[in-house]
Amino acid sequence: MTNKSSPISNQDQFANKAQAWSARFSEPVSDLVKRYTASVDFDKRMAMQDIQGSLAHAQMLAKVGVISSQDFADIERGMTIIGQEIASGQFQWSLDLEDVHLNIEKRLVELIGDAGKRLHTGRSRNDQVATDIRLWLREQIDLIQLQLKSLRRTLAEQALIYADTIMPGFTHLQVAQPVTFGHHLMAYAEMFTRDAERLADCRARVNRLPLGAAALAGTSYPIDREQVAKTLGFDGVCQNSLDAVSDRDFAIEFCAASAIVMVHISRLSEELVLWMSPKVGFITLADRFCTGSSIMPQKKNPDVPELARGKTGRVNGHLMALLTLMKGQPLAYNKDNQEDKEGLFDTADTVRDTLTIFADMMKGLTVHAQNMQAAARQGFATATDLADYLVKKGLPFRDAHEVVAHAVLTCEKRGCDLADLSLDELKAFDDRIDSTVHEVLTLEGSVNARDHIGGTAPAQVKAAAQAMLKTLSSQ
Amino acid sequence: MTNKSSPISNQDQFANKAQAWSARFSEPVSDLVKRYTASVDFDKRMAMQDIQGSLAHAQMLAKVGVISSQDFADIERGMTIIGQEIASGQFQWSLDLEDVHLNIEKRLVELIGDAGKRLHTGRSRNDQVATDIRLWLREQIDLIQLQLKSLRRTLAEQALIYADTIMPGFTHLQVAQPVTFGHHLMAYAEMFTRDAERLADCRARVNRLPLGAAALAGTSYPIDREQVAKTLGFDGVCQNSLDAVSDRDFAIEFCAASAIVMVHISRLSEELVLWMSPKVGFITLADRFCTGSSIMPQKKNPDVPELARGKTGRVNGHLMALLTLMKGQPLAYNKDNQEDKEGLFDTADTVRDTLTIFADMMKGLTVHAQNMQAAARQGFATATDLADYLVKKGLPFRDAHEVVAHAVLTCEKRGCDLADLSLDELKAFDDRIDSTVHEVLTLEGSVNARDHIGGTAPAQVKAAAQAMLKTLSSQ
Amino acid sequence: MTNKSSPISNQDQFANKAQAWSARFSEPVSDLVKRYTASVDFDKRMAMQDIQGSLAHAQMLAKVGVISSQDFADIERGMTIIGQEIASGQFQWSLDLEDVHLNIEKRLVELIGDAGKRLHTGRSRNDQVATDIRLWLREQIDLIQLQLKSLRRTLAEQALIYADTIMPGFTHLQVAQPVTFGHHLMAYAEMFTRDAERLADCRARVNRLPLGAAALAGTSYPIDREQVAKTLGFDGVCQNSLDAVSDRDFAIEFCAASAIVMVHISRLSEELVLWMSPKVGFITLADRFCTGSSIMPQKKNPDVPELARGKTGRVNGHLMALLTLMKGQPLAYNKDNQEDKEGLFDTADTVRDTLTIFADMMKGLTVHAQNMQAAARQGFATATDLADYLVKKGLPFRDAHEVVAHAVLTCEKRGCDLADLSLDELKAFDDRIDSTVHEVLTLEGSVNARDHIGGTAPAQVKAAAQAMLKTLSSQ
Amino acid sequence: MTNKSSPISNQDQFANKAQAWSARFSEPVSDLVKRYTASVDFDKRMAMQDIQGSLAHAQMLAKVGVISSQDFADIERGMTIIGQEIASGQFQWSLDLEDVHLNIEKRLVELIGDAGKRLHTGRSRNDQVATDIRLWLREQIDLIQLQLKSLRRTLAEQALIYADTIMPGFTHLQVAQPVTFGHHLMAYAEMFTRDAERLADCRARVNRLPLGAAALAGTSYPIDREQVAKTLGFDGVCQNSLDAVSDRDFAIEFCAASAIVMVHISRLSEELVLWMSPKVGFITLADRFCTGSSIMPQKKNPDVPELARGKTGRVNGHLMALLTLMKGQPLAYNKDNQEDKEGLFDTADTVRDTLTIFADMMKGLTVHAQNMQAAARQGFATATDLADYLVKKGLPFRDAHEVVAHAVLTCEKRGCDLADLSLDELKAFDDRIDSTVHEVLTLEGSVNARDHIGGTAPAQVKAAAQAMLKTLSSQ
Repeated sequence: MTNKSSPISNQDQFANKAQAWSARFSEPVSDLVKRYTASVDFDKRMAMQDIQGSLAHAQMLAKVGVISSQDFADIERGMTIIGQEIASGQFQWSLDLEDVHLNIEKRLVELIGDAGKRLHTGRSRNDQVATDIRLWLREQIDLIQLQLKSLRRTLAEQALIYADTIMPGFTHLQVAQPVTFGHHLMAYAEMFTRDAERLADCRARVNRLPLGAAALAGTSYPIDREQVAKTLGFDGVCQNSLDAVSDRDFAIEFCAASAIVMVHISRLSEELVLWMSPKVGFITLADRFCTGSSIMPQKKNPDVPELARGKTGRVNGHLMALLTLMKGQPLAYNKDNQEDKEGLFDTADTVRDTLTIFADMMKGLTVHAQNMQAAARQGFATATDLADYLVKKGLPFRDAHEVVAHAVLTCEKRGCDLADLSLDELKAFDDRIDSTVHEVLTLEGSVNARDHIGGTAPAQVKAAAQAMLKTLSSQ
Repeated sequence: MTNKSSPISNQDQFANKAQAWSARFSEPVSDLVKRYTASVDFDKRMAMQDIQGSLAHAQMLAKVGVISSQDFADIERGMTIIGQEIASGQFQWSLDLEDVHLNIEKRLVELIGDAGKRLHTGRSRNDQVATDIRLWLREQIDLIQLQLKSLRRTLAEQALIYADTIMPGFTHLQVAQPVTFGHHLMAYAEMFTRDAERLADCRARVNRLPLGAAALAGTSYPIDREQVAKTLGFDGVCQNSLDAVSDRDFAIEFCAASAIVMVHISRLSEELVLWMSPKVGFITLADRFCTGSSIMPQKKNPDVPELARGKTGRVNGHLMALLTLMKGQPLAYNKDNQEDKEGLFDTADTVRDTLTIFADMMKGLTVHAQNMQAAARQGFATATDLADYLVKKGLPFRDAHEVVAHAVLTCEKRGCDLADLSLDELKAFDDRIDSTVHEVLTLEGSVNARDHIGGTAPAQVKAAAQAMLKTLSSQ
Repeated sequence: MTNKSSPISNQDQFANKAQAWSARFSEPVSDLVKRYTASVDFDKRMAMQDIQGSLAHAQMLAKVGVISSQDFADIERGMTIIGQEIASGQFQWSLDLEDVHLNIEKRLVELIGDAGKRLHTGRSRNDQVATDIRLWLREQIDLIQLQLKSLRRTLAEQALIYADTIMPGFTHLQVAQPVTFGHHLMAYAEMFTRDAERLADCRARVNRLPLGAAALAGTSYPIDREQVAKTLGFDGVCQNSLDAVSDRDFAIEFCAASAIVMVHISRLSEELVLWMSPKVGFITLADRFCTGSSIMPQKKNPDVPELARGKTGRVNGHLMALLTLMKGQPLAYNKDNQEDKEGLFDTADTVRDTLTIFADMMKGLTVHAQNMQAAARQGFATATDLADYLVKKGLPFRDAHEVVAHAVLTCEKRGCDLADLSLDELKAFDDRIDSTVHEVLTLEGSVNARDHIGGTAPAQVKAAAQAMLKTLSSQ
Repeated sequence: MTNKSSPISNQDQFANKAQAWSARFSEPVSDLVKRYTASVDFDKRMAMQDIQGSLAHAQMLAKVGVISSQDFADIERGMTIIGQEIASGQFQWSLDLEDVHLNIEKRLVELIGDAGKRLHTGRSRNDQVATDIRLWLREQIDLIQLQLKSLRRTLAEQALIYADTIMPGFTHLQVAQPVTFGHHLMAYAEMFTRDAERLADCRARVNRLPLGAAALAGTSYPIDREQVAKTLGFDGVCQNSLDAVSDRDFAIEFCAASAIVMVHISRLSEELVLWMSPKVGFITLADRFCTGSSIMPQKKNPDVPELARGKTGRVNGHLMALLTLMKGQPLAYNKDNQEDKEGLFDTADTVRDTLTIFADMMKGLTVHAQNMQAAARQGFATATDLADYLVKKGLPFRDAHEVVAHAVLTCEKRGCDLADLSLDELKAFDDRIDSTVHEVLTLEGSVNARDHIGGTAPAQVKAAAQAMLKTLSSQ
């Protein structure tokens, strides 16, 4: 058996690929069309995953006897060389070869000949690319989880330090009740913990093997998909070949989880920017997260949180792009799907870099505790405590609320705080008030009183932070 | 203890609520502002959840001694009456009272007096509304899960019936390889199974109790949050009060999961519309899912799938609205959050109704198997099988691919199928071809050959459908 | 000629419409499907436009001789009655009749018999609904323009009042340079002026007549579309029937313009909330735009700007919904398009109500000029003025920038402002500094110096405000 | 006066820029932060616009006497060199210098010394970048307009060729009425004409000069903004400095207009893919817009329209990103705004490339007129004509509609078309039918009858196409 029976040389299919996909094509593709449809500029980022997937596929083909063990050995050898060429930047990427898959396969055939041409047996680019993306995304999720962990640890450590640093708690940006800065930081730690949960759930759906679906219907070779899944560390195999090649749910789900991460980042950023504004002055960010102005010599701008807040838009956009992309696509694979990658890559990069920087930035905060405390004294932050005090003395809450509203009105007219009123003045609003009242009107009394799970009492904040640190250590 | 010590009557706070929130307000709200800021028109939908949450709260207050057991009994009695009034449509909703919470609380005070005024002890509308939404959404998720189950069951049952009905498998809407209609239906069953997984993951994060966070900092009463969580069937309590009142992650996550459901619906709809188009003619939808034309008497239009496809936009929109809403919000509660409900309600309604109708619609398909089979004969659907055949005869896949491309080109010129070529004609392309070739060129041969997990072989389709039905039965 | 030759009675088509669209339908529609596909609940809002369009159509049909003038007189009479029934709330809307068009047409046939059945000659619901939406949207745009005008007038009037009220100008929420509050208000007036331009451009594309496109291809009747356009006040007719029935560009464009309006509203809202925060204290909103707390008696929350900021999400969502809706729709009309209305209606309502409230709210601001002035003294707001001063003395700008940075550093260490440094101290940084320097370091000197088009000098602000008021008066 | 009085050397500010923005910074920025915050990787794309803007600024500074004419000559000379360095790829871009502006400015100082340091007088990067983006976007809009023109010309030319090629007109993908292929193409020509209008409106708002706003408040130099606007070809100047530096409306508006372009592209793509599907077979795309399969040798896939359809998502995403970005940003400039560029650049590239390819692709269609004609004979496309015929014979339209529905039902049962019924058979449905009926039941009769503005009659299609070609020629 020789190649003579076939007039097709190795060169034919790859060398002329872009000009003429196969014998059925009569016309070359223009340069613009080539650039428009090629993906190698961005999908080469998945080169290592492509090699990893090909090796697992070849190993299985050899095991079930579709290719020889010598073929597999050749493929392994070739892929090792290619991996090194890529790592060292020597690999010649060609736009004519469209994508990462054909670039690598062609080089493999150059290096090892016929064994290379046997690699694509029993698979298609449709299941190959789906496998590569999942491998790539799984790795990114793991990297993001590390950064989330690091950020949560930083927040919990800072929360321990500032567990009894009192600041005004705001609703509607109006002073509501005193809270501790540690409590405030732990609110974000909770958000990022939910993000970690969501990404873990998402990872379970990412981590399923599409390979073996071939173009769309499976293959006539006696493949062993469970074996490939095991080699690649997948939790299971996609159960339907049509679905396997066209499914991009996992990418949408990842972008949705990422968008929620960025919403949390945007909220924290908003507060950091606000807290560093001179009228507020609660914190100063380390200089390395700020930049100056080309015109105003005095400026020190909180660039990093502002930019991060802006990047929320980018991730929302990628999510919307993917949802639009998949809307109304008939089964199975359509070329539309090539558009799944750039947004996905950028989403992972954005989230990973942002979390990395935030873990570092939150470590380097300078906290102006006196400013926080002073601000908590504005705005009648302990008014609720007075109402609660009255309730404990027997007044129904709704009536107590109204009594205190009158007291606040009086203070406002006088320009003083509730704590500044004498006992007699307070008794004029309700005669149940006695000398114990001034204790509840202090900031410390107020925060200490909220001593239940989730409350702002320093004891609770410390317990919550320690519990989180313990959980993080054991993971 | 009498009201005399306090000049505030019951009427004051509720009756004048909207005009003057408390003694601090000096000016009534205009009608437009009232309408603009009020939420009762839509949040009254959570009335039963509001009552349920209030009862659990009151029960706990009584248990820890903050209110008397007589107070709790009164509250229970009052809430029973209110529940009946709402159910029967007799409840008088008032825009002046802003929202569902104040409407119910005011009526409670009317019915039972001081005990009603004690209900709001140790809580705030901020944690109350968060609790109500979670209770409401949990119930909706459970309803949607039932519909997803019903749709998956229908799809699996239909897949069993059509497990060996051959149709063309498409990629790029070009005929690719033959598949079975049952296999195609199971692709959607897989998608909806992932949706069920995602919603189950989401439910776990919905099902946490924010109550006890009060306005933002917790409360000075000795509340027992674990007890309330248990009463309401929550899996746990939110661990940080600032986060608890401002978190809307669960709503975003639900909308994201819903958007993916609708993407699946849009894909299925696209195919149904296409399949019912006269040039395709694979199926006919039951008349009850179609409408006619006001001008063209012959029309029977697949309205339901088209409308469902359109509703994908609506759900994408609600997701984007929530992401925009939460972007950059400082802690803790801000009025912006009132905007979370209408989109969330509409998302749940849209998904629930759509799935209900689709379960019914997919049951009532008329399948035109001959048209499917005839279409599979167009487009050289078994070309891959010929290539695989050559590989098994020793040709490397890449060479086999090119040989077959030449054969297809010849057939195309002649206007015939590969199966129509004589053995001699086929041998001219490669002399390894022998008399066994015609078996692999049949549609049946092609589908039967794809006999591995996820492949389109009827045996595999049946196994997959039966496995799904078994899983659904055991849930 | 009698109805005897046709067995079809009037009742048949309308009475049984929903159950059986025409003789071709053999099965009734279920209640859920009926509710799912019907639009009358929301499209009845276009009833007056539907009548208006029908009358113009009928008038033209009579003019070209397709119906008799008696028919037109009957139709006019019938429509007058229907218009009154709708206005008075007596019209019986029926879900069975699907939409506003069939509801009105059926009632017309009831009222006037055969002439009513002739109304639908030469048109279809496809071009009818497109006409109705355009008429409705044109009216909404005109209403929104009035509100935009009112808001811009308010801003310009306030800008005149506060043209020399100095406040800190922020970049990155850090104090940058002093500006005037009037200048700040005029920035928003400029934004809303662009919104008015954009909506005017959009209106020109809304205001084209689709009627006459019939179902998709035009009609075989000798219709006069220019005449109908003239009657209805359209600027022209849609030039292609396929496009006319399927085009929803105008709705997307309106939602995009509305989304930009809401972005502006969100920015203004963000600032109002911030300015009203106690640490900033630049303004107080009138009580009628604020609400209190159910638990914290001291609270006065800027609810209206917060809610408006939240509503940005809603409008973004509707825009995204429409873009998703239209993506990939083949020509011509598909049922998907029914989804265009609810989001469009809600967008118009949201923008209109928000602008109305903001015009009123911006009139009622209390401005705390001393707080503004005091804040402008923080943060070295005149550092740029010092650099400019040095440049005018001959130092290249880049060098001057660095000199001032050193001066700021010194002040920061000492806790003083640049203006607090003595002449000798200043000269130590650069010996070109002389006694004229202190003038440029004052806030007044700084704002007055920016005296060019668009600059913050009070003279410029007044000129800009007056120019805008003049333009608004002449419109 | 020498530099000796100032200890600051040229090197200091630029060489250490990123490490220490000015004397106020005490800490270097980490590599990740540097990469995260730098924009030079993407904003260098605006280098030519940056130079163009700087030259216009310098020319004006010289004219008003802020710099000397020698300084301006030096700046011109330096910028010429820099322009050449960039064009030839020799320019050394530095991440340490953050952005395109500082990279160019530093090189200018290297080349020409102090004159270079004077360039930044009276401006800031805030107004500089806003000017650059507007110049860049204006150019892109002009390029896109050329491509839109080219595509519209192609469509109109093809419409002339196929003005009487009959195809089925679809609603709901069901055959509705016959139309001509030329009419169908002109529907898209109309859409792209509206796109051109929208982009022209957008350009007017892009083409306003922000320069002179400086950092946010204007500048104390006697600048002449009208002069700069004239030099740069702007239509006017931004009227408020705070607005000028923070406004990104023009970018959002451009992305919204682009999203609508892509919606049109997605609709056309959907149809091309559908028309090329073997069951439909209306057209064949030229090979250069298709690719093959790595596994299925017979495949010729319409990759370009599929990919273009997918790119709709990308542009929707960028629009949503910008809307999210700007939501809730306080005045004036914030670092968030740096996120405006990448999405904007990619939007322009996507739209420009897509339109270019589509103009070429639509030229190269092979039209299978027989298939179109045959398809139009399916589905009772002339049923409306029969109803109209009956109306002209005196039957009210609603009754005629029902008569024809019965006739269709009969044909459907028999498996024939309306035209296949004998006169007697037709008369059985309504005795007004006479021998002239068969003319109206032909496809040609049907299309010719729709002979009014916008109708599908070949005469109308030709007139519309010629009118468009004439307009395009005169532009």
